[in-house]
Order: sequence, then structure tokens, then C-alpha cells
Amino acid sequence: MSNYQVAMTDYLATFIEELIQAGVKEAIISPGSRSTPLAILMAEHPALKIYVDVDERSAGFFALGIAKAGKRPVVLLCTSGTAAANYMPAVAEAKLSEIPLLVLTADRPHELRNVGAPQAMDQVHLYSTHVKYFTDMALPENSVEMLRYAKWQGSKAVDIAMTAPRGPVHLNFPLREPLVPILDPSPFTQEKAIRHTHIYYAHQVIQPELIQQIIASCEGKKGMIIVGPNSKKEFAEPLAAFAKQIKWPILADPLSGLRTYGDTDNTVIDQYDTFLREQDLVTELIPEVIIRFGAMPVSKSLMKWIEQFEDSLYYLVDSGNEWKDPTKQATDIIHCDERFLVDALAKDFKKATSSDWLQSWQHFNKATETVVNEYLTTLTEANEGQLIRWIREYLPTKSGLFIGNSMPIRDVDTFFNKTNKSIKLLANRGANGIDGVISSALGSGTVIQPMYLVIGDLSFYHDMNGLAMAQKYGLNLTIILVNNSGGGIFSFLPQATLPKHFETLFGTELALNFETIAELYQGNYQAPKTQEEFHEAMDLASFHKGLDIIEIKTNRYENVASHRELYQAVSKALKDHGYGYEN
Amino acid sequence: MSNYQVAMTDYLATFIEELIQAGVKEAIISPGSRSTPLAILMAEHPALKIYVDVDERSAGFFALGIAKAGKRPVVLLCTSGTAAANYMPAVAEAKLSEIPLLVLTADRPHELRNVGAPQAMDQVHLYSTHVKYFTDMALPENSVEMLRYAKWQGSKAVDIAMTAPRGPVHLNFPLREPLVPILDPSPFTQEKAIRHTHIYYAHQVIQPELIQQIIASCEGKKGMIIVGPNSKKEFAEPLAAFAKQIKWPILADPLSGLRTYGDTDNTVIDQYDTFLREQDLVTELIPEVIIRFGAMPVSKSLMKWIEQFEDSLYYLVDSGNEWKDPTKQATDIIHCDERFLVDALAKDFKKATSSDWLQSWQHFNKATETVVNEYLTTLTEANEGQLIRWIREYLPTKSGLFIGNSMPIRDVDTFFNKTNKSIKLLANRGANGIDGVISSALGSGTVIQPMYLVIGDLSFYHDMNGLAMAQKYGLNLTIILVNNSGGGIFSFLPQATLPKHFETLFGTELALNFETIAELYQGNYQAPKTQEEFHEAMDLASFHKGLDIIEIKTNRYENVASHRELYQAVSKALKDHGYGYEN
Repeated sequence: MSNYQVAMTDYLATFIEELIQAGVKEAIISPGSRSTPLAILMAEHPALKIYVDVDERSAGFFALGIAKAGKRPVVLLCTSGTAAANYMPAVAEAKLSEIPLLVLTADRPHELRNVGAPQAMDQVHLYSTHVKYFTDMALPENSVEMLRYAKWQGSKAVDIAMTAPRGPVHLNFPLREPLVPILDPSPFTQEKAIRHTHIYYAHQVIQPELIQQIIASCEGKKGMIIVGPNSKKEFAEPLAAFAKQIKWPILADPLSGLRTYGDTDNTVIDQYDTFLREQDLVTELIPEVIIRFGAMPVSKSLMKWIEQFEDSLYYLVDSGNEWKDPTKQATDIIHCDERFLVDALAKDFKKATSSDWLQSWQHFNKATETVVNEYLTTLTEANEGQLIRWIREYLPTKSGLFIGNSMPIRDVDTFFNKTNKSIKLLANRGANGIDGVISSALGSGTVIQPMYLVIGDLSFYHDMNGLAMAQKYGLNLTIILVNNSGGGIFSFLPQATLPKHFETLFGTELALNFETIAELYQGNYQAPKTQEEFHEAMDLASFHKGLDIIEIKTNRYENVASHRELYQAVSKALKDHGYGYEN
Repeated sequence: MSNYQVAMTDYLATFIEELIQAGVKEAIISPGSRSTPLAILMAEHPALKIYVDVDERSAGFFALGIAKAGKRPVVLLCTSGTAAANYMPAVAEAKLSEIPLLVLTADRPHELRNVGAPQAMDQVHLYSTHVKYFTDMALPENSVEMLRYAKWQGSKAVDIAMTAPRGPVHLNFPLREPLVPILDPSPFTQEKAIRHTHIYYAHQVIQPELIQQIIASCEGKKGMIIVGPNSKKEFAEPLAAFAKQIKWPILADPLSGLRTYGDTDNTVIDQYDTFLREQDLVTELIPEVIIRFGAMPVSKSLMKWIEQFEDSLYYLVDSGNEWKDPTKQATDIIHCDERFLVDALAKDFKKATSSDWLQSWQHFNKATETVVNEYLTTLTEANEGQLIRWIREYLPTKSGLFIGNSMPIRDVDTFFNKTNKSIKLLANRGANGIDGVISSALGSGTVIQPMYLVIGDLSFYHDMNGLAMAQKYGLNLTIILVNNSGGGIFSFLPQATLPKHFETLFGTELALNFETIAELYQGNYQAPKTQEEFHEAMDLASFHKGLDIIEIKTNRYENVASHRELYQAVSKALKDHGYGYEN
């Protein structure tokens, strides 16, 4: 036992203890040599849940999933070298989707940097602008001052990760050999000389005069509320009540929580992605005022529509300092706690808008829903839109549904209409990558159960390595795999009309047998074809604890045709009913 | 056809044409929307070989493998968002191992950056210090000036990537919709107004006076030559001849090419990793002068030994401006073409060193080899060291062997003694990651055939997604999988003595059936147990074009014991023969 080992143990244990005091409950560790002392000390702490993942890319997204569902900071730990580079995709996603990750990387000490030493690369500012905070830690020492420093960095890292806008932070730890800490006596059972730092978070409020000014600009006006992904927890109910009070529609993104908060409210509009495609028919819906919460909704037709509004007053509410409006049409940006603002407006709002306004929205919503419902009953084969309805009908209340990017999230937007079941809908909508989705769903599933995942075949393949965690920790996840043999979304894009290079560059069919993949990870596999078979498969999966893969085979050419047919039917119905015409 | 589409087509086609004129032959493309015009134009060029890989992490390492084996620049192309973040591990490896990669990322145009637009993240300087050059390209225009700019950036990127030290460069392309280029008429069949830029590379030489000074300091001295990984092509033969002329030993790393250049020379010392572990026994081998080429060798015992030399003159030759010496003992750093230096020294060197010096080295080498050979004959079960000998005996001349990191490269160092077969040994020794190895081997295999890969089970799993390329393009690769059920190398480290957390954090056994994995990718699978069965399996694999997985199951506990037993036997033999004692 060297003095250095004692100092290193004290220093790192103080740091780890502080992370846990500040709210960390889980660490995802990838095996490595340089990170040994941090890994062993984390495993030694009785209050920390450890997951070990050999693939750092999957580990990053697994941590992201826990942090997303648990709304708490999660630790990632890996060794030096390209191990750390593998976190890059999850770090970039966490930055954009405001998820608190504490990325800890072990590094060679300074004397082994830039001298051609093995497994040594430049880890300083490795994640560039994609973390909120970076620090290259001091070498371990156990003077009181340096223990205070270790503690300080621990609580500061959690603080920065958890302050709006939340996001990832990166601490790089240079460590010398020998890399083995002292566990006897256990460093976490002793009374510590270093006191913890308590962190209190302010509640962002705006002054009463401004509230009155906003109310004055909204009262009696044709207004609408837009709620995007990642809106704050326990926000849905008061917002729905407020919308009812002022008689405004809420355009609710599937990830807003408003479609699935446990009740249905007729102010909630869930068919807009479909009927706003017909911009000529919806001129009567142009608002005088918009209040928008959360990130930009998934719907492209909504975005295109908002781009037209040169005269509408447009409030963008964001408790962080992000400017999330690709239309760049927002006229007033309010940095304020979302829930506070709604409560304050509701309290003093006097004059609701005329009922005609909300009714127009409800008519369009209802007419569209009717056409969609009718259309879906005419289908005889498994269809990607219909599948979303099957899932929606099946999901039990209090369950979670993780949604893959590319086609699934768009189909959920179109086909997952509001329900009075309480369902948590989740997706990685920061950078919208198809990577890391299985791992994120598995991570979220450690917090919310039962958890389901609907995902395309390419995205499934990209993070197939994530399945190892399901097998290793006996995690319970039912994956509904939409296999349309390749990149389905590309069939909707203009390049689909260039057959010369299309299949090579975009179709990218994977010749993979998903039953074999299920076998590889000891999961159950089913391939239902009808709604009845699908429900049976879901029943069986609910019964079985562990990994379930339910494969639905669809055809991406037919899928494009089917989506287009539906939009035409909606367009026709809106025209036939006289919507959009002066009447 | 919009004016913008014409301008975009002209601009990007000019850029791509220039890359090809500058030596690019392959592009690895990952599917995406924003990158569509670049992807389609690359597919349209008749002289560019396109590979499509859905996993950007594997794609990065596949490109690295081609660039490594082909010693030429290779293009990577992906869409915006985390797709680009997935290249980070391969980019970091390419920077450290000096491999020319041209990383092209599509991006949202400026008006969609930092406004919350979908799939938009900060891609400016994404790879931080891990690329040699970054430029955020201008938006496409087809004025003569902007076509010259596109051309200029193309040739400049190749130039920087190919100039010593070689490495990755990153060009980020903002692109607007519509993302479809004009293919009629084909942009590559027309006469271009923009002239190509020809690039000529200087040969780094040093002045004659310095050559004489080096010779004067070396003549008649006890000197040794050390050659590390990545030494320059066609360097082995002249260096071996020079060593013979001056009677110095060459300590040849397995990746130096000196052990496998097609001839064996008795100046080449290949057992040093074993006998230099006995520092007390080898005092008579301490050199007066060292000349070192290439990166630091894999051998840790060699590094530890060099660290002792306070009085030796130590020349470090590097044609780039890297300082690759973790011992920091180099006294003279020479930036000069390696081959030029050897030729110049050989020409004027007059006085060889006394034969006793080289003979001492040869005696140690021979004695060690004898003990190792004898030891291996006593083994009855498959052993990781013995397996390397089996591979060495089997490999045909002109073949390639890609070597996984962690244990395989160390076992190759110890057990792959010199041979008169010409075999290209390759490994990713920049950051020494266990990631991306399958993809790198597959990429290298498109240049060198037949190609073999020896890899551990964790590293195999990390890049399992890389196997999709073998299946898709019918690539020929034989993977010799050393399955020791987890992180074998950790068993050699001090934490193996902390059983409380060892298996959880470091053992990391994967409960995977590799036969099922072979089935998934339609590869052949065999699991030989004896040398005879192994040879039969390799025969069958040589016969079969495509993917072959040959699994050798070993035991990591027995493996540690066996390695230690061997080192003790060597130590005893050296003592018994009186080496290292004054005699």
C-alpha cells in the first residue's frame, strides 16, 4: 500500500461520495484499465447501482435513457483512448435534448500525454461544444485542500448538468499507476472530514407587469398553444385546464405528454400534422397569437405552416436560454418556468376567446380523425400507421413507449391520437439520430415499467449491441420491430425518383434474420400478421419478463403509397365538407 | 430543375472530381438525407468505388482499414447530426496512427443552425484536435471563383491528409433543399473549365555534415536499431542490410515489417519482449547508441528497459513532427525521410562494431526462442501463445494478418517470430482501442488478400456490426476468434487480486454463441481444438470465399498461469546458461 494509493483512494472516494449526495443513483461503467480505481470505488459504494456495458457507444445511450426517464444525473465511466470517443453520439444527443449526463473519462497523467504513449489521445475538450462544462481534473492528492477540490468538482458537475438547460458535463481524470484503490477499511464507511455542498435551484419567474402585458395581448384573441417534446413534468393537466378556460386549442406533440397524461381534453388537437398539410384549406385557422412551450414539434407541416405567419404575435417560452425555433418567427421570447407562467396567466386571465375559434379547430380535428379511422378499417395487410393504432390500443396505463426516429416518430405523430391512459412517450429528439435507440429504451425501462419500443430495422441494427444489457441484467423490454427492409423514410424523399442509385445508397436492405438475433440474445421472438395475432404476441410478451422482439414486416413501397392515399382522402373530405372555404 | 440544383451539382461535382484526381479511389457512404447530393454524385462517378455502410462507427474503421493497407486517402461521407459523431473513434485512431481519411459531413445550412431545427447539431470543429484540418465549406455556387474554391478545398484536403504526419481531415458541407443533383447530362462526362491542381511531395533530407556527425557518433559503438509499428514501406530490406553491415541488432516490432518482409536476417531480434523482462540478466546488452524508427514498439519490457538508459545516445527518427517517446530519453530527434537516412548512413559508414556485440544479442535471442519452443511443445490444450505459432506456420506468403488489440497484439509480439514468408501484419496502434477492429480488417482485406484477423471476444463483439459489410459485399475474411470469455488482459493486472469486484467490472463474460453470430451473417463457423484441426479449419476457410469464423476457446485464468510459467522458464534458462553474469 503506497502513499499514492491512499491519496488516490481518498481523493476519488470523496468525489464519488459527493456525486451520490448530489443525487446520482446509477453509474454505467465500461471495462478498462486506466479507469480501474474509479470503477472499483463506485462498485464499492453501497448506494450506487452499477451497470457494466462493454460497448461505450451503447453505454452512453443507456445512461441517457435512465437520465431521460428518471430526470436525474447519471454517471458514465470509461477508460482512456477511443473508449471515450465512443460516447460522442450520446453526448451530442444529451446536449441537444437537455439530458444530465456526467461523463467521467480516465486519462494518462500529464507526463504520458503527447509522448507516443500507448492508448493516449488528447481528451481535453474531447466533446468540443457538446458538453456544458469540461474540466481536466488535478492528479489525486489527499491534502484537505485537494479533497475539498474533489468534492467541489463533484457537486459543481451535477449542478451544471441539472441547471436549465440541462445537459452533459465532462470530467477527465489523469491517473497514475498503481491503479488499485485501498478497500480495507472501506472508504465509504468512515466519517468524512469534508462537508457536503447542498445545492438549491431557483424557480425562474417573471415580473407581474409582464404577466399582465401578456394577458392583455392574448385576451379574446384567436390564439393557440403549441407544446413540443420534452415539456416539463406535471405540466399537462394545468395547461389543459388553462386552454379550456381561455378556449384555445393545444397543438400537442406526441412527446409533449398532452396526448397521454391520463385524461382527454377536447382542447387538445392531435390530427394537425395531417390536416395542416392542406394549407389552402385551413386559412380560417391562422392564429393571432401563439404561445409555444418545449422544443419544436416533430410535425413538418406545422413548421411549414408557422413559417407563413408574418403578423401573429408568437411567444416562445423556454426556461433555458435556447432559441428553439427553426421558423425564426417568434416575436417574444420568455425565459421563465413553464408551469409558473401557466399558473400566473390562468389566475388573472379574464376574457376567453369566442367558442367559434376552438370549434373550428375541433371540427378539423374530428373530420380528419374520422377519415383516418375509416381509412384504417379498409386496410387488410399490416401497415405502419395501423400498427401505431394497435400499439396505442394495447398499451396499459402507466406504461412507457420509446419511439424510434425516422419513420416511427412521424407515424406516432400522425396515428397516436390522444387517450385517457397515462402513457409516457419518449424519443431521442435532440439530434434525431437513429443510433442508440435500443440502449436508450433499455435505460428508460429501468425507471418505467412496462416499457415498449417501436423501432425500424436500420435503427435496430445500428444499436444491436445494446441488447447485451437486456440479456446481462434481465431487463424487461418488448421491442416492436417495424421491418420495412431498409431506410423507409428515404422512399418519401425526392431521391426515390432517381432509381439509378436509389437502392444502393438509400434502400440499404439488411439481409438479417431477426429471429436469429433474438436467439443470440436469448429473447422471445414472434412475427404476428393481424391485429389479433399482434395482441396475442403482446400478451405473451407482457407475461414474459426479459427481452421480447415482435417483428412486423411491412413494405416500404406500399407504405409510401398508403400514406399518400390517406392524405388524399383527408384532403378530399376537408374539401367536401367545405372546410377552408368561406362559408 | 432549379438554378440552385445546377449550381449545387457543378460545385459538388467539381469537388469530387478533384478528390479523384488527387488519388482518392474509394468512398464509404452511410445513408442519410442531407448528404444526398454528395452521395449520388459519388455513385455517379465511374472511377470511384462506393461502399455503403449503415453504421457510421464501423464505416469509419472500414475506411481506416483501406487507407492503412492501401496507403492512400479514403473518403467517408455521412449525413448531419449524431451520424457524424459516430466517426469520432475512427477519426481519433487515424490521427494517432497517421492514416489519411477525408471525413465529409453534410450539415444544415447556416439559417438552420442553432435554431432548434431537426437533426441539427454543432458540427464545426466537431472532432476537436483529432483532425489535421477542418473547414466549414461555403454554400454551393457555380461562379468560376466558387468552382475554383471547391476544387481548391478538394486538393488541399487530400494534400494535408497525405503530408507527414498523415492523418484525418474534416470538411463540413452546408446544403440546402432540394437535395437532388442533376444527373442528365452526367456531370462527370463533360469537359471542365476548372483545371486540376497537381501536388508534388518533397523528400525530407538532412545535410551531409549531419550525416557525417551521426556516423562519427555510431562507428564501432555498441549500437542497436529499434523499429516500431508503421515504419515506411520498402524499408525493411535496406535496413536489414545496413544492420548487417555495421553489425548491430535490430529490435523489430511485429508491425515493423522486419519480421515478415520475405527474408530472415540474423540481425533481427524478435524475442526481446521476453528476455528483456529479466533486466538484471541483460546488463551486457545495454547499448551506447540507439537509432529508433517508427512509433514506440508494443513491448512494455523494452520500454521499461530503455527508461534506464541515462548515458546512451538515442536518435529518434521521425519524418513527421511527432515526439513519440514515452520514455522521454531520446537525445537527438531527426526529422528526415527514414529510407534516405538509412541509405546515406550505409553509403559512408566505414567501421562496423565488433562481432561480439551482435553475437551476445543473437545468443539471448536463440536461448529464449529455444525455451519458448520447448515450452510450447509441452502444452496439450489450446493456448493463446501457441495459437499465434499455429497461425504463423499456416499463413501463406503475400497474405495479411490483422491483429486485435489488448492480448492478441501482445501475444503476436511474444510468439510471432520472424519468418521468410512475406506477410503484412496490421493493427490499430494509434489509440490501441478494441473498437472497430473487424471493420478495419475488412477494409484492409479489400486491398490485401487473403486477409486473416486474430481477435479477442470482447473486441469482436464491440464491432460485430462491421460484419454486415462482409455479408453485403461478399468480402473474404477469416476471423480467428480467441474466446477467453471476457477481458483477458485484465487478468494480468493488479485488480485481478481484488476478487470482490473483479468479475463484475473486468471479467465481463459475454454469454454469446458465436456460431449463431456466424449464422446471422451467413459466415462459416468452425471450432477446432488441436493444431491439426486448426489447420483443417484454415484450409476450409481458404477454400471458402466470404466470411469465416474460427473460434478457439481458451481459459483466461490458465492463460495467465501459462504466460507466467513460460517467463519463469526463460528466466531460469538465462540464469543456467550464465547470461547476464560476468563470464
